[in-house]
Amino acid sequence: MTELRVAVLGVGMMGADHVARITERIKGARVSVVNDYFPEKAEQLAATIPGCRVINDPLDAIADPEVDAVILATPGPTHEKQLLACIEHNKPVMCEKPLTTDVATSLEVVKREAESGRKLIQVGFMRRFDDEYEQLKTLIDNGTFGQLLVAHCVHRNPAVPPSFDSAMIVKDSLVHEVDVTRFLFDEEIASVQIITPGANPNAPEGLKDPQIAIFTTSSGRHIDVECFVTTGVAYEVRTEVVGEFGSAFIGLDQGGVVRKQRNPVQSDAGAGSGASGPNGSSDGRKIAGIWGGDITPSFVERFGRAYDTEIQRWVNAVHAGTNVDGPGAWDGYAAAAVCAAGVKSLETGEPQKVEMVDRASLS
Amino acid sequence: MTELRVAVLGVGMMGADHVARITERIKGARVSVVNDYFPEKAEQLAATIPGCRVINDPLDAIADPEVDAVILATPGPTHEKQLLACIEHNKPVMCEKPLTTDVATSLEVVKREAESGRKLIQVGFMRRFDDEYEQLKTLIDNGTFGQLLVAHCVHRNPAVPPSFDSAMIVKDSLVHEVDVTRFLFDEEIASVQIITPGANPNAPEGLKDPQIAIFTTSSGRHIDVECFVTTGVAYEVRTEVVGEFGSAFIGLDQGGVVRKQRNPVQSDAGAGSGASGPNGSSDGRKIAGIWGGDITPSFVERFGRAYDTEIQRWVNAVHAGTNVDGPGAWDGYAAAAVCAAGVKSLETGEPQKVEMVDRASLS
Amino acid sequence: MTELRVAVLGVGMMGADHVARITERIKGARVSVVNDYFPEKAEQLAATIPGCRVINDPLDAIADPEVDAVILATPGPTHEKQLLACIEHNKPVMCEKPLTTDVATSLEVVKREAESGRKLIQVGFMRRFDDEYEQLKTLIDNGTFGQLLVAHCVHRNPAVPPSFDSAMIVKDSLVHEVDVTRFLFDEEIASVQIITPGANPNAPEGLKDPQIAIFTTSSGRHIDVECFVTTGVAYEVRTEVVGEFGSAFIGLDQGGVVRKQRNPVQSDAGAGSGASGPNGSSDGRKIAGIWGGDITPSFVERFGRAYDTEIQRWVNAVHAGTNVDGPGAWDGYAAAAVCAAGVKSLETGEPQKVEMVDRASLS
Amino acid sequence: MTELRVAVLGVGMMGADHVARITERIKGARVSVVNDYFPEKAEQLAATIPGCRVINDPLDAIADPEVDAVILATPGPTHEKQLLACIEHNKPVMCEKPLTTDVATSLEVVKREAESGRKLIQVGFMRRFDDEYEQLKTLIDNGTFGQLLVAHCVHRNPAVPPSFDSAMIVKDSLVHEVDVTRFLFDEEIASVQIITPGANPNAPEGLKDPQIAIFTTSSGRHIDVECFVTTGVAYEVRTEVVGEFGSAFIGLDQGGVVRKQRNPVQSDAGAGSGASGPNGSSDGRKIAGIWGGDITPSFVERFGRAYDTEIQRWVNAVHAGTNVDGPGAWDGYAAAAVCAAGVKSLETGEPQKVEMVDRASLS
Repeated sequence: MTELRVAVLGVGMMGADHVARITERIKGARVSVVNDYFPEKAEQLAATIPGCRVINDPLDAIADPEVDAVILATPGPTHEKQLLACIEHNKPVMCEKPLTTDVATSLEVVKREAESGRKLIQVGFMRRFDDEYEQLKTLIDNGTFGQLLVAHCVHRNPAVPPSFDSAMIVKDSLVHEVDVTRFLFDEEIASVQIITPGANPNAPEGLKDPQIAIFTTSSGRHIDVECFVTTGVAYEVRTEVVGEFGSAFIGLDQGGVVRKQRNPVQSDAGAGSGASGPNGSSDGRKIAGIWGGDITPSFVERFGRAYDTEIQRWVNAVHAGTNVDGPGAWDGYAAAAVCAAGVKSLETGEPQKVEMVDRASLS
Repeated sequence: MTELRVAVLGVGMMGADHVARITERIKGARVSVVNDYFPEKAEQLAATIPGCRVINDPLDAIADPEVDAVILATPGPTHEKQLLACIEHNKPVMCEKPLTTDVATSLEVVKREAESGRKLIQVGFMRRFDDEYEQLKTLIDNGTFGQLLVAHCVHRNPAVPPSFDSAMIVKDSLVHEVDVTRFLFDEEIASVQIITPGANPNAPEGLKDPQIAIFTTSSGRHIDVECFVTTGVAYEVRTEVVGEFGSAFIGLDQGGVVRKQRNPVQSDAGAGSGASGPNGSSDGRKIAGIWGGDITPSFVERFGRAYDTEIQRWVNAVHAGTNVDGPGAWDGYAAAAVCAAGVKSLETGEPQKVEMVDRASLS
Repeated sequence: MTELRVAVLGVGMMGADHVARITERIKGARVSVVNDYFPEKAEQLAATIPGCRVINDPLDAIADPEVDAVILATPGPTHEKQLLACIEHNKPVMCEKPLTTDVATSLEVVKREAESGRKLIQVGFMRRFDDEYEQLKTLIDNGTFGQLLVAHCVHRNPAVPPSFDSAMIVKDSLVHEVDVTRFLFDEEIASVQIITPGANPNAPEGLKDPQIAIFTTSSGRHIDVECFVTTGVAYEVRTEVVGEFGSAFIGLDQGGVVRKQRNPVQSDAGAGSGASGPNGSSDGRKIAGIWGGDITPSFVERFGRAYDTEIQRWVNAVHAGTNVDGPGAWDGYAAAAVCAAGVKSLETGEPQKVEMVDRASLS
Repeated sequence: MTELRVAVLGVGMMGADHVARITERIKGARVSVVNDYFPEKAEQLAATIPGCRVINDPLDAIADPEVDAVILATPGPTHEKQLLACIEHNKPVMCEKPLTTDVATSLEVVKREAESGRKLIQVGFMRRFDDEYEQLKTLIDNGTFGQLLVAHCVHRNPAVPPSFDSAMIVKDSLVHEVDVTRFLFDEEIASVQIITPGANPNAPEGLKDPQIAIFTTSSGRHIDVECFVTTGVAYEVRTEVVGEFGSAFIGLDQGGVVRKQRNPVQSDAGAGSGASGPNGSSDGRKIAGIWGGDITPSFVERFGRAYDTEIQRWVNAVHAGTNVDGPGAWDGYAAAAVCAAGVKSLETGEPQKVEMVDRASLS
């Protein structure tokens, strides 16, 4: 198999991760071009990858005849132009979320891809490739729960960067639950409401956190989401679906179980008499152990493997000529439309109708 | 209903617990007499219980006409004489383990009760009254697992008193697993082996801890037990049974689940800027939460309720005239026989046959 | 201790349960009087309880000089008159929910008790006495989670009687979550919204089920509740609280774990050759086991023990002269006020302010 | 990167799996040669892989200049000759267990590799590459548990082929626990005992199943293993390690949790009246749900990903020139020595010393 020559645009944390992933673990692809707003960053990275060039203009990279496919890990505001260039040059592209930064430009991308007559754009909603989500989707599709009726989601981050604002909770965090909902329920979200209860006293001033989102799907199903990005605890993502015949949880994160001393003494305790050892028998201190384990600190640990699966399946799809194996431009547009309604609701507190064009009109 | 007048003999930790239990929670009984080797201890306690007298000689307490039933929480070496007095005076008795301190005297008690023609003695193996053990027993008796084949037990204490020696691990800790095995498998233990692998460096010098016990039942089933009494962690008791059609665990101790910050800041953090709050966003410290919860520190938390059930059902049985509702003298004798073999094996490391009389010979 | 002479009014399922509970398990109390709308039902029951009379008029039973305390398990519409009689005759009363059937009469009861100058009324919100709720409350009160911010509740029944209507989901099911919220957050609920998403196709026609309730507390905290009473699965009650420093779950219901064959063959399989046994080795059928266990089928299994604790502590409080140890008349009134707002919201779909008098005005 | 040209010898289930794995998922390698005892099987497979040849003599395949590395998935009895050929031709080789079928030939292979002066042989103990085992090993190596003292393992298969005999339980099933023990404790097993309690009535006649193995390590640590290969349930592999400061479980297999109706009605129920729906409200049938989920039916589901990791890391090691990244020939020899002692113990029931040469004598 000839290896797919991939250009990775934007080599910040996410893009650099994709470069490493493709170089080390993805079968059938190699990184042939890297690009970044800071050329020296691209140069440094390229120097470590055999056969990898730097092209400083992202549009040139897209157009390059020795680039077979593109990964966009550039800032959102540049996506529209880059996606349209991919369509123009007929290059399959894996676009990290968001598709674009507003609904109108997202729709424009959807339309231009539709006009091109071929699928070229996949959007990086990686959770669809996570084992637990995949298994849950399979159970749903097999009719295990009958008609889905309700879902409850939890999305918690330990902390966010100082620049993070209330709308970003919708656009950067909640957006994943938007896609998960559309994926699991297999229908559009018709309205969204963002409730901002009393804020976490430890959140940066002015940040409305936690936020509670309520989605209603087009057939009237109810989904609620807790988005809480300053928990100080860990990265926790949980989903429960409830249907006619039963329900299921994912994300309980209780694989291996450790039981340990509350304050383990791990140094050698000297004379070994046991008199002052960790069992506390001599001084009457109360002993109490804990059971449990660590929670994944960030999305890297929680979804690292899902990214591998996502990119491998995308590479396979490009080889197969189908180009997309997962969420496409429409899904990016739908997410943008829901998030736009969400941001509006964040201001008003009221449920907002999601404004979307009729998908049938595009085909 | 006339309340049963109970004499509690021995009011150390366990006996005092029974006094409190009967006084506060047990329906149909009251403590009418207390006794202790230290009379002032008995006096102090009696002063807090309406209508409760002190009788300084345990045999007088047993013989007292205003005592309907007896609880023995006295030291093991006094049990034989006290039990025989109970038989002589026809007083139902709940005897904390051990029945007596050796096999011969235990057998003597069994015989004398048999000769008396009525059941009078119950032995305090409280686990049989624990919800989880009861549910497991029900599943077994309902045929859920078919023929039982194997069981695995874990018995862990955080610490033991300084005087605890290797044989006491057999006689005071393992004895509970002896009774659990006989209860769940509903047959006798035919041989026992105690293995003493490398000891815990934090155990008191000379204490062979942990110990691994292997029981073989009369029909050839295998049970292994880890007894580890200096874990420094908590009180953990677990049992897994394995049968033809499936298996089951109890004691995983994972009821409520807490997720928390590793080092929660619980004081008010001052200016509330969030800049140095527990979410760690400003200084890049790695954040990681833990999930899990506390493990019960001692048998009091783990089996407190089982004691209530045990005593209530015993009181009810005495009212009903059956006197025993749970393990009886034979079970105390069988446990003594198994532990005696265990102590012998502790010395030799070899499996030891359990020497017991034929139960049928007693009836 | 002289036993408290309790009159149990209403001996349907719940009242009869209390009669059995007091007779068999509650220390310090006996049932001296029973009453029911159907006198023969009361007669039958009384015949089985030593020293128990039937009094056919509930108000006579309350007034009877040989009745020390009252349990109301009568239909809600009779509660007001019976509670006022208890106040008049200075009889401590444990009133099964609801306090009364509307807000105005509940308030009247609260006022009359306040005027009497003593606490007499306890309301039967039994969950406060459940071990898991108690432990969660202790964690909260100890500051484990810092300020509570959000809670998520699930309340699922397998089925409801044919007469159950949409408002009863609020008044009979959700009311427990109303009390749990007030208990855990220790503040009033200021507004409530009931959302009725697409109904379960298996629910009786016209029943809006599931329902999603959103409570906002007076300090602005958010609680959401899924009430779903026709799941066909089991009785599931779960609560997750989320605070500044962490979160916790109760009700996961994963104590003992059973692993079993999907279709266990439990009969003797004949020739014992194993060739066609349950291991399926001979015919290539796919084998797959399941792990897990049963979920409690009803509130009887889930909260049976909580009822025991509730009644024992109430009996103890009456003996101690404090009369109430748990939720009182005010809690019954507050629940009525929240449910009234909930029923209004059920019609409009909009959040409704909870109308309550100022508690300080009553003292 | 030039792709490693791998010859896969033996394309039965395991070999064919490796061929698919390398072709579809392993970065940096391709299958250039396949071989099988049944040439047509190799031909069929080769036809589906671009650039893949068949070589009918395994020794020719090993010697082939266009083969860079070898995977042995041939029957055990052929391993010795093939491994020696790999050493002779300086070809890195991943050898599925067993290294060879007896201790003497395993030692011979170890010696010949040592004489060659380079590491060439990796042995396919895939569990070392499983996430849970890796995490457990990391916890151990980080000192979380202090000195390890004891471990408990469970290895259960739903069924075995008709030809499976009692010794194969040791050599084919228990061998994995032998390697896991050596991996986690990082020391040799000094003695092994196989206990054969009463057999599963559903096991094929003559098969001693379950078996209990007891390992003692060279420093005196105790490990017990339940091997039970006819459970009829599923593939369950569990390990608990116990150390000075705590303990940990892996393999509880409780990721996602499903709650469902016992007998879900999944067809459309007709008129939708709900009157006879699955909630059972109309006919009084007892409803009870179950929680839990599926257990992996076979090692394919349980360890599929571990195989991927194993092969990818091996390919990377060959590229890096270190050839081995995981268990090597010595580990294969040690496993053979322990299993040989185990088979002897299976006959005698007594503990057997493991006879091994001094590793230092080889270097």
